[in-house]
Amino acid sequence: MSHNTFGHLFRVTTWGESHGPAIGCVVDGCPPMIPLTEADIQPWLDQRKPGGSRFVTQRKESDTARILSGVFDDGDGPVTTGTPISIMIENEDQRSKDYGEIARAYRPGHADYAYQAKYGVRDHRGGGRSSARETASRVAAGAVARKVLGEGVWIRAGVVQIGAHRIAPDQVDFDAVSGNPLFAASAEVVPAWEAYLDGIRKAGSSVGAVVALEVTGVPAGWGAPIYGKLDSELASALMSINAAKGVEIGAGFDSAGLTGEENADEMRLDLNNQPVFLSNKAGGVLGGISTGQPVTARVAFKPTSSILTMRQTVTRDGEETDLRTKGRHDPCVALRAVPVVEAMAACVLADAFLRHRAQVG
Amino acid sequence: MSHNTFGHLFRVTTWGESHGPAIGCVVDGCPPMIPLTEADIQPWLDQRKPGGSRFVTQRKESDTARILSGVFDDGDGPVTTGTPISIMIENEDQRSKDYGEIARAYRPGHADYAYQAKYGVRDHRGGGRSSARETASRVAAGAVARKVLGEGVWIRAGVVQIGAHRIAPDQVDFDAVSGNPLFAASAEVVPAWEAYLDGIRKAGSSVGAVVALEVTGVPAGWGAPIYGKLDSELASALMSINAAKGVEIGAGFDSAGLTGEENADEMRLDLNNQPVFLSNKAGGVLGGISTGQPVTARVAFKPTSSILTMRQTVTRDGEETDLRTKGRHDPCVALRAVPVVEAMAACVLADAFLRHRAQVG
Amino acid sequence: MSHNTFGHLFRVTTWGESHGPAIGCVVDGCPPMIPLTEADIQPWLDQRKPGGSRFVTQRKESDTARILSGVFDDGDGPVTTGTPISIMIENEDQRSKDYGEIARAYRPGHADYAYQAKYGVRDHRGGGRSSARETASRVAAGAVARKVLGEGVWIRAGVVQIGAHRIAPDQVDFDAVSGNPLFAASAEVVPAWEAYLDGIRKAGSSVGAVVALEVTGVPAGWGAPIYGKLDSELASALMSINAAKGVEIGAGFDSAGLTGEENADEMRLDLNNQPVFLSNKAGGVLGGISTGQPVTARVAFKPTSSILTMRQTVTRDGEETDLRTKGRHDPCVALRAVPVVEAMAACVLADAFLRHRAQVG
Amino acid sequence: MSHNTFGHLFRVTTWGESHGPAIGCVVDGCPPMIPLTEADIQPWLDQRKPGGSRFVTQRKESDTARILSGVFDDGDGPVTTGTPISIMIENEDQRSKDYGEIARAYRPGHADYAYQAKYGVRDHRGGGRSSARETASRVAAGAVARKVLGEGVWIRAGVVQIGAHRIAPDQVDFDAVSGNPLFAASAEVVPAWEAYLDGIRKAGSSVGAVVALEVTGVPAGWGAPIYGKLDSELASALMSINAAKGVEIGAGFDSAGLTGEENADEMRLDLNNQPVFLSNKAGGVLGGISTGQPVTARVAFKPTSSILTMRQTVTRDGEETDLRTKGRHDPCVALRAVPVVEAMAACVLADAFLRHRAQVG
Repeated sequence: MSHNTFGHLFRVTTWGESHGPAIGCVVDGCPPMIPLTEADIQPWLDQRKPGGSRFVTQRKESDTARILSGVFDDGDGPVTTGTPISIMIENEDQRSKDYGEIARAYRPGHADYAYQAKYGVRDHRGGGRSSARETASRVAAGAVARKVLGEGVWIRAGVVQIGAHRIAPDQVDFDAVSGNPLFAASAEVVPAWEAYLDGIRKAGSSVGAVVALEVTGVPAGWGAPIYGKLDSELASALMSINAAKGVEIGAGFDSAGLTGEENADEMRLDLNNQPVFLSNKAGGVLGGISTGQPVTARVAFKPTSSILTMRQTVTRDGEETDLRTKGRHDPCVALRAVPVVEAMAACVLADAFLRHRAQVG
Repeated sequence: MSHNTFGHLFRVTTWGESHGPAIGCVVDGCPPMIPLTEADIQPWLDQRKPGGSRFVTQRKESDTARILSGVFDDGDGPVTTGTPISIMIENEDQRSKDYGEIARAYRPGHADYAYQAKYGVRDHRGGGRSSARETASRVAAGAVARKVLGEGVWIRAGVVQIGAHRIAPDQVDFDAVSGNPLFAASAEVVPAWEAYLDGIRKAGSSVGAVVALEVTGVPAGWGAPIYGKLDSELASALMSINAAKGVEIGAGFDSAGLTGEENADEMRLDLNNQPVFLSNKAGGVLGGISTGQPVTARVAFKPTSSILTMRQTVTRDGEETDLRTKGRHDPCVALRAVPVVEAMAACVLADAFLRHRAQVG
Repeated sequence: MSHNTFGHLFRVTTWGESHGPAIGCVVDGCPPMIPLTEADIQPWLDQRKPGGSRFVTQRKESDTARILSGVFDDGDGPVTTGTPISIMIENEDQRSKDYGEIARAYRPGHADYAYQAKYGVRDHRGGGRSSARETASRVAAGAVARKVLGEGVWIRAGVVQIGAHRIAPDQVDFDAVSGNPLFAASAEVVPAWEAYLDGIRKAGSSVGAVVALEVTGVPAGWGAPIYGKLDSELASALMSINAAKGVEIGAGFDSAGLTGEENADEMRLDLNNQPVFLSNKAGGVLGGISTGQPVTARVAFKPTSSILTMRQTVTRDGEETDLRTKGRHDPCVALRAVPVVEAMAACVLADAFLRHRAQVG
Repeated sequence: MSHNTFGHLFRVTTWGESHGPAIGCVVDGCPPMIPLTEADIQPWLDQRKPGGSRFVTQRKESDTARILSGVFDDGDGPVTTGTPISIMIENEDQRSKDYGEIARAYRPGHADYAYQAKYGVRDHRGGGRSSARETASRVAAGAVARKVLGEGVWIRAGVVQIGAHRIAPDQVDFDAVSGNPLFAASAEVVPAWEAYLDGIRKAGSSVGAVVALEVTGVPAGWGAPIYGKLDSELASALMSINAAKGVEIGAGFDSAGLTGEENADEMRLDLNNQPVFLSNKAGGVLGGISTGQPVTARVAFKPTSSILTMRQTVTRDGEETDLRTKGRHDPCVALRAVPVVEAMAACVLADAFLRHRAQVG
């Protein structure tokens, strides 16, 4: 894995800055003969794109994906050819504005200081490379990964906590996610959450959240010990999403409070004499290998760092100053992370599928 | 990263099964001219080795590391030569016993079923490759990584939760860890925890735990966007440890409950006019790059799956059965994970150091 | 290294087909703060671009490189930021023509059959991904690599054999290369070679060639045993160029005919008491590590497979047929490979430089 | 690929020095359920081991391979388990001798100076890591690779040129190789070659050679464009062998002298209506992908650098001196490279097989 590439066999390289001419990705290692057009990608990008509701940034981007390579129509419709799939998304709303202040001052909670400390230079326009805009490329790649996995693997995510408001585990309903602008995994919570988030938004503040992930249809046997464990790679992929601060698999941090009796998922045979588990504390992964149960994970996101409240900071010239971050921002960055979480899971699983097929046939 | 290798430039490959003749690792990419002998490795192995107290497995292993390559003494004492360092640890206590039952039946919570489903075969003796015994190799590699990092980087970990017993964040004292057999990060909790864990142990049960990690001395600038983020790589490395079910950086899952004002670590200048942060919710990482603050993380471990209580399971021959896992086991596998957490952090950081030096000089 | 990516730290991913909308590359791992604009790239592309003389394909392409990311101007001119540099070259002359015949029949000597056998589908338009057009991306990446290496490393290549016509080793003059349309490393041979190649061209035939490479200014110590040897990586990179069939380093195949006495490059001290070699049979590499002498290599290229002469072949439908490959072709594909050889060497060396800096500081 | 590891899915990491306690390799990514014991490895090591004839070094090594992990016998004999296979070979004849001279002086033609320049230290005992002894690990790994490939893929190599003595291409007979101590690919040349090499040996000199490789049974479709080409990876692997200075595929450097008509391998249908080629100038690879024809390559080796003739050199202390390299050496290092060439080809092909299966199924 290099810095801007992830995956072993299904490999995704992304490029581009928030306010450059375009962003994009190159998906390498995709199997051939998979039908693929821009129409397979666009719906997922539309989920993530800005401007969709008052709860997300008002930046205007159509996020139109264009496939530049790797697909060929030999008469039966476009299919992948096994060669790299280059996807480009042009930036349309690089609003011209005065970046003078944030060019100098480090926005607290942002990557500004860290980039400057590392590279001695940073593209400060909208966060440059560290902008969440980069995640559009991931969503595009994830759309390709879904095609590799096929319809048997069903990947769903939704917000299960926002600030102090939580959806109880037994109330999580992924079917509700697409029906509300908060990506909430429960229809019931939406009115209260909207009111809460409106308050946050109007205050120029922001709030953190937790996104839950569930993948069904993963057969037993994917993933690989010891340093290619499925849960390890999910953790890496999900933690790489902007603002992610924690990842847990299955019972996660709650496992620490359990006894061995409570934690061990017992097994029985189903009507077809196939092994089944009677619970899923493991989150579908044991020893880094999928068990056939749903793969479940949760990702914690910190609040959007860009807030209107004045905060103390310093400048690259070594002066103390106070800064409020004006401009267009998401009051809860985790909302638009939901399709990104799904996309990253899709890419990790497509990669695990190909690697399993390689080793075991 | 391949399945049994991790790291980009400081690369560790481990091999070996619980009850084979030996286990070991090959550390590649180590800088040359670093003094290194087995005495630099052994103390860390001694921390992890079994048999040290009644709270860990009674397997008898000296865990003696032997360096087979990559070090040369040209008169001034042994130093690394820049070539691969092969380290071997012989298995001494492959106690001969009847594996008949667990050769057939899948132990709930263990990797048995997943390995069998993936490979069609598994070394069932003591868990084979999936045994926590593999982590001794990681500890050996971590000892080399510490030498690469030098004394300025200080890596410490300790148990901060065991079952329902927690150490409050402001009570965490890493200095206490080496002074008690529970690796607890507080001297005060030890008597109560010992009593609690004795109960667990005598009941033939087990319990989960949380290990906290703190690394000081990491300069600003290590790590790399986007898919080589320092926190992403820590998450991958820590989640790859046996029984790990969750990883969080800085405020972690608590971030979800914070507002932007609470979460953003404000900055000021110190007496030397250097930027300082007034808090560390970020856990020392922003945009995937170290900020110069302590790197902090927490890892959740599930309870040891091997318990004496009878559990329902199935056999590889497709029969239902009940199983209790006899033998030598840790009542809380997380205790001995403390040196492993430190070792994985050391390896990730040594790798980040070399990669930073490569790109930025 | 994945399929469409090469390099470890200075990593190049290329994408695009001969007759798709565009081709391009993503260069990852480039150090920051290096001045870089399209003007640094274009001159190298101009060397390789088609239509420059009657000895190369008459396809009309301006081969205009556009940098889409990874460069930022903070007031002192555009510099690299350490983030991925995406470079796109639009295809302008995807001449619409009847591909019916080569869509069905495999062109002898081309990759048509192999791609079809592997993938079950191929983009037959102009060779698709296997077209030498892909090498424009390499040349663009090579231009970035040259900036990383700086002016102290001087990379030159030229044609030293075309068909049966050879330039004697002691007559090779790389200064002559830019002054003639044949990229010949000797001004004297040009008239005879032009006449010879005109004959080949008019006959609708083609011919093979050998390109020599010489890199000066590489310090001692770059490269790494055992599987990252500098000569091994050069061999891989050069052999990956379209139509390459052989690579040799230093004395190469002639080494087989030498005695140990003839082959060993003896050493003495120069006026500054620095070690010097009295000959360079090794081609600047010993044990896979640079010695400080010029790095020398030679690459053999087969004749262009597209010829007007009718050849026997089969179709994907399992019929025998005869085929002549009409269209625009280079009578000697190796001529335009000269800038590609240089570019690949630049990329390999930039990568070796960064890796050496990582490990040794 | 890191420095001491090669391969993508079938990955080999080697370690160890000439005069350390042992050498070895870790083979990762091997498919499970392949019968494997030390008896599958030893015969190949026996081919390469020293002391077998007067034409190779008289060092006494049994080169006994010991499998330490990755294989398990569950009742039907030992099979691979899909986990890393660690193989160790102990060094038995680290003859204690005075290394004083070569510890100080750089042996011309050896890697001594390059290692010292790179690392600032080198294990000078017998060449340390740069010794050809390392290739025993490759041969062991190659034995595993052969098991992965199965008996359908037949890998053979032999010496076809030694000094000025060549075997004409149409006289090459790989069946003859195992019947003579020179690994010559022709029984007829053996008496003359033995006399020639005896002369070289008695003069304390050495000579170069060319080894030819032929692999039959590789199906069409293995290998991958663009930077994972089968010929590119073979070139890398073969050039990484000690003393290799050139690699060519198929017609190789002779391609430069051919016309397009001569070079293009025409196609017809065989009796089963399957495509066949009427010649094999391509060496079984087109566009980096196997064609189903035999994969053919040739590797040039320089003469052994260790000779008894006095040569000029310098010391690490900056003094000029003259040096003759006493001790046990091969008069023609290429002879024992024959099994190494085969082993590297086996590893590259096993890796290509797994990668093909991953992407295409």
